[in-house]
Amino acid sequence: MPDPFTPLPAHKFSFGLWTVGNRGRDPFGDVVRPALPPTEAVALLGEVGAWGVNLHDNDLVPIDASPSERDRIVKDFKTACERNAIVVPMATVNLFYDPVFRDGAFTSNDPRVRAYAVQKTLKAMDLGAELGATIFVLWGGREGTETDACRRPDEAVKRLREAVNYLCQYSIDRRYGFRFALEAKPNEPRGDIYMATTGNYLGFIPTLDRPDMVGVNPEVAHEQMAGLNFLHAVAQAWEAGKLFHIDLNDQVSGRYDQDFRFGSANPKSAFWLVKFLEDVRYDGPRHFDAHAYRTEDYNGVRDFARGCMRTYLILKERAQRWNADAEIRELLREAGSNQPLPSRETLLAQSFDRAAIAARGLAYERLDQLTMEVLLGAR
Amino acid sequence: MPDPFTPLPAHKFSFGLWTVGNRGRDPFGDVVRPALPPTEAVALLGEVGAWGVNLHDNDLVPIDASPSERDRIVKDFKTACERNAIVVPMATVNLFYDPVFRDGAFTSNDPRVRAYAVQKTLKAMDLGAELGATIFVLWGGREGTETDACRRPDEAVKRLREAVNYLCQYSIDRRYGFRFALEAKPNEPRGDIYMATTGNYLGFIPTLDRPDMVGVNPEVAHEQMAGLNFLHAVAQAWEAGKLFHIDLNDQVSGRYDQDFRFGSANPKSAFWLVKFLEDVRYDGPRHFDAHAYRTEDYNGVRDFARGCMRTYLILKERAQRWNADAEIRELLREAGSNQPLPSRETLLAQSFDRAAIAARGLAYERLDQLTMEVLLGAR
Amino acid sequence: MPDPFTPLPAHKFSFGLWTVGNRGRDPFGDVVRPALPPTEAVALLGEVGAWGVNLHDNDLVPIDASPSERDRIVKDFKTACERNAIVVPMATVNLFYDPVFRDGAFTSNDPRVRAYAVQKTLKAMDLGAELGATIFVLWGGREGTETDACRRPDEAVKRLREAVNYLCQYSIDRRYGFRFALEAKPNEPRGDIYMATTGNYLGFIPTLDRPDMVGVNPEVAHEQMAGLNFLHAVAQAWEAGKLFHIDLNDQVSGRYDQDFRFGSANPKSAFWLVKFLEDVRYDGPRHFDAHAYRTEDYNGVRDFARGCMRTYLILKERAQRWNADAEIRELLREAGSNQPLPSRETLLAQSFDRAAIAARGLAYERLDQLTMEVLLGAR
Amino acid sequence: MPDPFTPLPAHKFSFGLWTVGNRGRDPFGDVVRPALPPTEAVALLGEVGAWGVNLHDNDLVPIDASPSERDRIVKDFKTACERNAIVVPMATVNLFYDPVFRDGAFTSNDPRVRAYAVQKTLKAMDLGAELGATIFVLWGGREGTETDACRRPDEAVKRLREAVNYLCQYSIDRRYGFRFALEAKPNEPRGDIYMATTGNYLGFIPTLDRPDMVGVNPEVAHEQMAGLNFLHAVAQAWEAGKLFHIDLNDQVSGRYDQDFRFGSANPKSAFWLVKFLEDVRYDGPRHFDAHAYRTEDYNGVRDFARGCMRTYLILKERAQRWNADAEIRELLREAGSNQPLPSRETLLAQSFDRAAIAARGLAYERLDQLTMEVLLGAR
Repeated sequence: MPDPFTPLPAHKFSFGLWTVGNRGRDPFGDVVRPALPPTEAVALLGEVGAWGVNLHDNDLVPIDASPSERDRIVKDFKTACERNAIVVPMATVNLFYDPVFRDGAFTSNDPRVRAYAVQKTLKAMDLGAELGATIFVLWGGREGTETDACRRPDEAVKRLREAVNYLCQYSIDRRYGFRFALEAKPNEPRGDIYMATTGNYLGFIPTLDRPDMVGVNPEVAHEQMAGLNFLHAVAQAWEAGKLFHIDLNDQVSGRYDQDFRFGSANPKSAFWLVKFLEDVRYDGPRHFDAHAYRTEDYNGVRDFARGCMRTYLILKERAQRWNADAEIRELLREAGSNQPLPSRETLLAQSFDRAAIAARGLAYERLDQLTMEVLLGAR
Repeated sequence: MPDPFTPLPAHKFSFGLWTVGNRGRDPFGDVVRPALPPTEAVALLGEVGAWGVNLHDNDLVPIDASPSERDRIVKDFKTACERNAIVVPMATVNLFYDPVFRDGAFTSNDPRVRAYAVQKTLKAMDLGAELGATIFVLWGGREGTETDACRRPDEAVKRLREAVNYLCQYSIDRRYGFRFALEAKPNEPRGDIYMATTGNYLGFIPTLDRPDMVGVNPEVAHEQMAGLNFLHAVAQAWEAGKLFHIDLNDQVSGRYDQDFRFGSANPKSAFWLVKFLEDVRYDGPRHFDAHAYRTEDYNGVRDFARGCMRTYLILKERAQRWNADAEIRELLREAGSNQPLPSRETLLAQSFDRAAIAARGLAYERLDQLTMEVLLGAR
Repeated sequence: MPDPFTPLPAHKFSFGLWTVGNRGRDPFGDVVRPALPPTEAVALLGEVGAWGVNLHDNDLVPIDASPSERDRIVKDFKTACERNAIVVPMATVNLFYDPVFRDGAFTSNDPRVRAYAVQKTLKAMDLGAELGATIFVLWGGREGTETDACRRPDEAVKRLREAVNYLCQYSIDRRYGFRFALEAKPNEPRGDIYMATTGNYLGFIPTLDRPDMVGVNPEVAHEQMAGLNFLHAVAQAWEAGKLFHIDLNDQVSGRYDQDFRFGSANPKSAFWLVKFLEDVRYDGPRHFDAHAYRTEDYNGVRDFARGCMRTYLILKERAQRWNADAEIRELLREAGSNQPLPSRETLLAQSFDRAAIAARGLAYERLDQLTMEVLLGAR
Repeated sequence: MPDPFTPLPAHKFSFGLWTVGNRGRDPFGDVVRPALPPTEAVALLGEVGAWGVNLHDNDLVPIDASPSERDRIVKDFKTACERNAIVVPMATVNLFYDPVFRDGAFTSNDPRVRAYAVQKTLKAMDLGAELGATIFVLWGGREGTETDACRRPDEAVKRLREAVNYLCQYSIDRRYGFRFALEAKPNEPRGDIYMATTGNYLGFIPTLDRPDMVGVNPEVAHEQMAGLNFLHAVAQAWEAGKLFHIDLNDQVSGRYDQDFRFGSANPKSAFWLVKFLEDVRYDGPRHFDAHAYRTEDYNGVRDFARGCMRTYLILKERAQRWNADAEIRELLREAGSNQPLPSRETLLAQSFDRAAIAARGLAYERLDQLTMEVLLGAR
């Protein structure tokens, strides 16, 4: 019998080059793993059964590479992707590592930095398009402040809008067909980051010139850092037609950005998420934006990558079991219905027996306990 | 010399009936203060120098009052308001106290509860309009879950939309002219509340039938509970033309909803907020949605209310001082400019000296230290 | 085949009267369930298979009961306990509900309040002893501040010490044989509570007259509210011989006190905890200090209580499976050893090949993924 | 008139070499400032008016320096200290940067790592003693886990104890006279760190061989990361005679370790802290364990260092004003007294009028508002 939790291309599991290639540097410690060349990262991803690889421009091409170096690197990378049957669904741009971005990229006070950031992004779009990516993620890791003395926050919103509009127009003019996915984060590496939650981006998008081209890329860790319910953010994005991409990992609330293996911090939250994505038939990439512990060598990195996918598939199977469970189905049936509101005339005339309605137990403890038992494989 | 920190009607300081009338009940303790009748609350507000009073329907009219009781109560209340020169700028509806709402109001699974919640809101709108309110706040304190087993979160969004559309139409039909202000909160009293942040509502509003009628009511404590930068949320709402109302109080991050006296938990955050509201000439009510400690009697409640307003005015004066400070102005001038992005042709041809740009210190430590000294009255 | 997850007396599962008797009042809502008389609570506990019941003095005896009422109530309660084969392993005192304690009990500024609090505790000890309790828990829910203006925090420590010493002497003199278990909490219902974590109490105990009589009662929710690793706190207490009692429930970090069904917020944390308690053969009560959602009637309360115990037993079985798993055992064997430090002479002469030591992968990703699969019943 | 906020040696302001020497590297970005040689750091500290400098062994001596290199470096450093009139009050050891410590130092599973960590610490003690330090800080930044699968947490406590006992004995044997100050942190760079709070260390110390030699080094940011009231932790340590050192900086709760300029995140918390340290006449170093924003060059670093000290002195002056304020004094006098508990006989016979006691308002809103006004220089 084949292992039911084996990753397949149809599952659309992708990893960023920076995830399996993460070298374990942190604020208090040095790198612990040797550099992993992009072509080897792709081979590793092929080996563990992934479908796609994503990248920031500088994950692949060094920031100061000459055009010919760039072309050679891209060619080698494409060859490696083909050899390992790995696609590039998404590309993005690094606007956070270089010191020039230390006070923001699109929202920097310095017009030269804003211009450079946009120029760098245009080139990253060229690169992404060349590699076949159709989704372009924008994470503004440095778009924020340590002190709000430095600029008016509404000014930052305007600058951000100007930049995203510029990028959309470029995609249109070059016929790249990109769908932009904006990724929120509340803080780290800045004291506070503008557009702190997926919700803030959902509010920002309708103010753009081309809202149709722009959606969101919610990340588990980024919402959970602020203690927010990730499922709710994803569901709102989905319902608005804006779930263009998703970053899967795990995170304990109220802490530094941990980027743990998917499902490993809180399997119950991960369960609700997987169930939702599968229930609504989300058909985009399942991108694992996570990395291995610093205790690991590259065998551990393989274990990490395999674990992300395996846990996803276990939770998917649990979701199917949940959906099929007769007692759960009965409890849900009893829980309520979607009947629309009555007409106003009817409604204003209606009288309600509040006490009677409130007396009925809703059996959610039972429903949640059944969920636990399905999740834990005890049912 | 008159005290420069004396509240005046022009400052538009308002308090909810439930704020000065808070009796100090909490999850582990009983009430500590006797009930304060609404007419006395209005007298207290007049005494301390407030401009307005806000209310939930049931702060004034008991949930089971007969029509004639209701009319008598409203009449007495209007008289008290007139006598004390207090206006009613905002009204809202209590969809959280009664057990019927224990699993939500507009998003409840039970169609009867949804219908009752809308009916109750229509009546609260009637009441608000009768009292002269032009802003109607909606806080969905029970619209959430303890377990996401109970309903699909995208279903909740649809139900919420149906309800808000219904209310807008009612306001139009009755020519009430209400502007609806949606108030986000991440959790408490539910495990998780839908529309966790002001950003989520900014994303929800454009999906309504009448987005022009609907804005937000950000509350300091509700964003800070999730550790989010309140100023940034307010600024995004303002920039989008959606800052219809604001709830001022204070809160330590990562905790139960504290509703402390304005500015008392973190005066620096409060300073940035006041500075922003005054800089952009926000002209809506400054509503203090807070309450006195449980250690207080009604003299302490007066101290609390006076303190909210006084701290606001001190911070407003500090903001003027900040704006006028020559060294601060010079630092801001050097910090950058709003020059728009170059045309694409120019931009693509441009070359940037990253190292040179990055080498310049931005003097934000100095800027923030000057801020501290202005704030602390030491400059 | 009998259900392996059926609770038995040997499991020592206990519930507070206030847990199954919780009526669902919260800061924004009224009670949702009718009062449950203590004798009926005991019957309910018997019905679901619990072993013990705990109580605050006023869970059983109203604060103003006359001596004869008190005696009658106690007698009926003992009868109910016997009839349902329920023991009373732990008693405690309510020093938080009555307004007299609004600024603290043992640490209040008012000497009358401090005296009354101690007197009330002595009587609660009498009650506990009469019911057969051998553990006396002290949770200082009001021992804290909203503003640190009100007293010096070192003064509060001294007052707390004076009170605990007083109680120990009383237990000695009356030959009650109590072991006191101090329960920490960082905040709520006070803005901040003194002795915020289990660690603070572990530091306080050695400063008492009779440290041998005093240990701790760590509560899952109280450490997790502050985002702390509960297992680590429990392990330190255990290692110090101070784990006198434990409060099991669940909680999302950075929020109001949720007191969710055991294991329902984060089953992985709960797994490590159960594994530790079982591995070290902790033989005290497994006390569930939690309550049912507000959506529930008393059938839901039964589901809640059953769920706490069932999840514990599932996790216990998973822990046994983890301990027996050959691959896990091998990984642990390779992970390291407890060899003591070399003598100083040897140590100072030793040379270490840092790079070689650091190059070895520790396989913790694999170890944790195996844990996930055991936990999820997928292995 | 001299500036009243000028730092003087008597204020005992110290900075770590790593603070002014911080180069701005973070998890998402590269260094932004050139390396600052230790001798230049000392000159900078002299220039801004600091009194002392602290160091990890490798802040001064590279981890692989030869003995002769080491001696030369130390000699040059001592000369620089003398030239700039800077003392070395505290030394510590870096057990977190090198990859060998990626799974802990004293608590590592690998006996070689534990031995190496102790050996490295002994040498760091030699270095500290040579430089005149009398306080030795131990921060176990890697003593923790990402998964609790890797070791039993009680085992970690035992290993930590063995190491600290070893170090104490070394200090005794070498007659170094060190007082060890243990520094807690809840997480980062590990998922969870053992001994998460100052309280945990206060509980650990009495289990050591020489508890008299060991105290704590509480750090503002480390307690506030977990949302804990720093003042309360410091006060407990002080009351127990264990406040051997203190790390001053600032931090927003529920986030990555920010190490902001003292007082800049929450001046009110900082005010209570300064007031306490001055009120109890704490006479140890005021160590600023913070660093400048990444936006700064070394002029900004100077601004940062000056700001830390200046804010401390402003708050100290505000504390004096608070203590001298007649209305505050009167409110405190009314608040209560330290009268000891009555004898048991008296106590048991006493009757209390709860309602009367509870009816009195405690005027803490007024007291806190007066505090705000003193703090903001508005009184």
